[in-house]
Amino acid sequence: MAGSVIDLNSDLGEGFGNWPLGDDEALLDVVTSANVACGFHAGDPTVLRRVTERAAERGVTIGAQVGYRDLPGFGRRFIDMEPHELVNDIIYQIGALDGLAKVAGTAVRYVKPHGALYNAIVTHEEQAAAVVEAVSRYDTSLPLMGLPGSEVLRQAEAAGLTTVHESFADRAYTPEGRLVSRRQPGAIVHEPDAVVERSVRMATKGTVEAIDGSSVAVSPRSLCVHGDTRGAVEIARGVREGLLAAGVEITSFVSA
Amino acid sequence: MAGSVIDLNSDLGEGFGNWPLGDDEALLDVVTSANVACGFHAGDPTVLRRVTERAAERGVTIGAQVGYRDLPGFGRRFIDMEPHELVNDIIYQIGALDGLAKVAGTAVRYVKPHGALYNAIVTHEEQAAAVVEAVSRYDTSLPLMGLPGSEVLRQAEAAGLTTVHESFADRAYTPEGRLVSRRQPGAIVHEPDAVVERSVRMATKGTVEAIDGSSVAVSPRSLCVHGDTRGAVEIARGVREGLLAAGVEITSFVSA
Amino acid sequence: MAGSVIDLNSDLGEGFGNWPLGDDEALLDVVTSANVACGFHAGDPTVLRRVTERAAERGVTIGAQVGYRDLPGFGRRFIDMEPHELVNDIIYQIGALDGLAKVAGTAVRYVKPHGALYNAIVTHEEQAAAVVEAVSRYDTSLPLMGLPGSEVLRQAEAAGLTTVHESFADRAYTPEGRLVSRRQPGAIVHEPDAVVERSVRMATKGTVEAIDGSSVAVSPRSLCVHGDTRGAVEIARGVREGLLAAGVEITSFVSA
Amino acid sequence: MAGSVIDLNSDLGEGFGNWPLGDDEALLDVVTSANVACGFHAGDPTVLRRVTERAAERGVTIGAQVGYRDLPGFGRRFIDMEPHELVNDIIYQIGALDGLAKVAGTAVRYVKPHGALYNAIVTHEEQAAAVVEAVSRYDTSLPLMGLPGSEVLRQAEAAGLTTVHESFADRAYTPEGRLVSRRQPGAIVHEPDAVVERSVRMATKGTVEAIDGSSVAVSPRSLCVHGDTRGAVEIARGVREGLLAAGVEITSFVSA
Repeated sequence: MAGSVIDLNSDLGEGFGNWPLGDDEALLDVVTSANVACGFHAGDPTVLRRVTERAAERGVTIGAQVGYRDLPGFGRRFIDMEPHELVNDIIYQIGALDGLAKVAGTAVRYVKPHGALYNAIVTHEEQAAAVVEAVSRYDTSLPLMGLPGSEVLRQAEAAGLTTVHESFADRAYTPEGRLVSRRQPGAIVHEPDAVVERSVRMATKGTVEAIDGSSVAVSPRSLCVHGDTRGAVEIARGVREGLLAAGVEITSFVSA
Repeated sequence: MAGSVIDLNSDLGEGFGNWPLGDDEALLDVVTSANVACGFHAGDPTVLRRVTERAAERGVTIGAQVGYRDLPGFGRRFIDMEPHELVNDIIYQIGALDGLAKVAGTAVRYVKPHGALYNAIVTHEEQAAAVVEAVSRYDTSLPLMGLPGSEVLRQAEAAGLTTVHESFADRAYTPEGRLVSRRQPGAIVHEPDAVVERSVRMATKGTVEAIDGSSVAVSPRSLCVHGDTRGAVEIARGVREGLLAAGVEITSFVSA
Repeated sequence: MAGSVIDLNSDLGEGFGNWPLGDDEALLDVVTSANVACGFHAGDPTVLRRVTERAAERGVTIGAQVGYRDLPGFGRRFIDMEPHELVNDIIYQIGALDGLAKVAGTAVRYVKPHGALYNAIVTHEEQAAAVVEAVSRYDTSLPLMGLPGSEVLRQAEAAGLTTVHESFADRAYTPEGRLVSRRQPGAIVHEPDAVVERSVRMATKGTVEAIDGSSVAVSPRSLCVHGDTRGAVEIARGVREGLLAAGVEITSFVSA
Repeated sequence: MAGSVIDLNSDLGEGFGNWPLGDDEALLDVVTSANVACGFHAGDPTVLRRVTERAAERGVTIGAQVGYRDLPGFGRRFIDMEPHELVNDIIYQIGALDGLAKVAGTAVRYVKPHGALYNAIVTHEEQAAAVVEAVSRYDTSLPLMGLPGSEVLRQAEAAGLTTVHESFADRAYTPEGRLVSRRQPGAIVHEPDAVVERSVRMATKGTVEAIDGSSVAVSPRSLCVHGDTRGAVEIARGVREGLLAAGVEITSFVSA
């Protein structure tokens, strides 16, 4: 596909205090968008200050990776909270990160929900509405990144927000284009070459091979790569190189 | 003193989750400046959202009441933290509150440190420098409220920040113009009429009777009243009425 | 019913730091069992130390009121956590309170889950199993208090634990003997005399009038009274006096 | 010195949620005493459950590594808290860990303060008294581990507690037998062979070479080795092997 364009995003700033996580520095040389934690599931202010500065130096776009307030669970546990409280928790997180980004000479340029919140709002109408309301109230020009076909992106579009469709380089897909649950065998693609190959196919052909071997249409504007597991940075670099070699332009969905 | 002008400030937004604190609604009808907690010593996002909206509706100026990260200690315990981490904790707090204030149609217009941090930076050079750096990096036009004669205001002025000199309606003063420690007897003036009388004298004559009976020069641009103790709201109302009756103009130090 | 015996329980120790909640002192003169918070949804160690000492002085039985780790939500939000982690969170909480109770010369004598956890394990099999496992591993002789007919009490009995059936003095019941959801109108009985009358009937006749007017069998060994709302302590006292006047013996389910 | 006996201790259980720290498994094969975090500076209940079980399996003695409530600062920042609140925070922590240890078939057998608290109570009389009071109230038979010559050990001995004198395998000493501050150059001995050699000398000769080259008397019953830095486990193993090769018996100070 001539003229293919894609963004690479990854979760960053997820250390906390004495506990590092992932290799932010290395990933910032790979991605074009950084989903930076906001302190509720991970990321103390000093970690966030550093990653926002490094991202700004490299011209990497900063997004607010908002999540449930749950440090011990890393934001990976669904919390059945009141939607109006979720609205406020999200505004607080975006504002906090935006303050640090401002000091780094930049700003929060998009929002991507994290972990259990990300998964919940694929279907949970009230929490999806809370996320859309939070972003809309904070800044109607902020794009919201999420899973194509999700309730949250549907509501976001109805509310006039810009949405960013995301695919996952290393996750298996159902024939319907949903992610295979992490609890299922084969949910994660571990083989580096396969991850690269799938990424290139998604970016250039707009399809991915589903877990049953069928071909599923995807049309990601952004591709998520991970950095917090052993070997992950190398895979992320491989994805970047593979995309470039295939003639794909890697660039943020936010104009500079 | 013809033409006397003063601001009234109070600590607001200091509930947390299921735990209310003080009567924010009542105080917002008394003060011209609201020192709103930022979540580190008190104030969950839903509490902060509500108080910023109510303040905006009434035209009360919003300040970021930044403190140590210490919910169980309510920010009243000195923490010997690294100054560069304190800088980031403060930026994070200002940004978070600023986000909520933005949604309420306004913004953080000044910064006032809270509790043990407020007291520490009267003398602690490194932490005072951290506060000044945080405010300067966030927005050099944000005034910093503090104790006249304190290290932090000295450094703030040297750094070109606007400072707001504050006196306390209900605190005893030493002959040198310092606050009598809360651990000393007589540190707090409890008698409502005395609090009002002292407030009027500070605003109109620029002096206060020290604990030894001598007269001390003070020149507050803002007067702090409290709202979290029994009867406090009534005293605060009395201070407001007493000032108005004495011909003092009560107005924020921030132009509308 | 000659020889009726009942226990009165209430939630205590639910302040945190600078935020008080309820009137622990007054309630300790009313109840025979204190469900003491353990620090995860409420209760800092100093609050807990005081309430365990006061309870010990009065001979009030201490129970561990274990909950989700959720200070901002006061443990009232369901958290979809891993059951094996819930086991450990509960053991930690029981142990912490037991340490403070030991210093007060007593011990944790039963366990009562709090808030959203209490509600979840009425039906949630895995979390119910986690609660039962935690109590069983900590001390198989610790009774577990809960809702009659709940999944957790069913599993607890199957595991050989002692269970304590609890009714609520001020909650409406369905004809099936379940609690009417708080989201339904009429879920809470507010009228003091009605609360007392219902309590006496439950304790002496083993029935309660359901929300549709029918009579439902209940056989509580313990009756829960609340203390954190205005007028609650007076209602609790009324329940105690009404029970005594009706000849009911008020005594803990734990032998002294 | 024929018949030399020493204990090896290390800090364990210092991960939190998604953030691991150190190699608990490897260290449990090296040490005879495990200073297990209690959740206030590090260590969630699931981490603590696992390390207490592993320690119990290997017969490693479990100590409660109590600290300030400060996850973002990892307990390394002095907090000027009220001594009576510190007493309660420590009892809570010991109790919580003791509950998990009980489930693992063992118990907390000693107490070692962590980080900034450890350093503070070398000289801070009120906080030292708080630590001694907490241990005394919890269990007068629990030994307290600390720095020889410290205020806390002096008070502990006066209160009739058993104390355990500790030396550090990899820390430089002043000619007076104090630790060289970490802010000074040369505070940490990095060279593995030197760490082993110093350990053997301390255990067998009761002396250590101070930073000025003089010989200082030390008489540790326990030697602290670290595990949370690169290469640390190897050094710890080297210390163990060096001591055994020198004929030192490595055994806990607590009788089995």
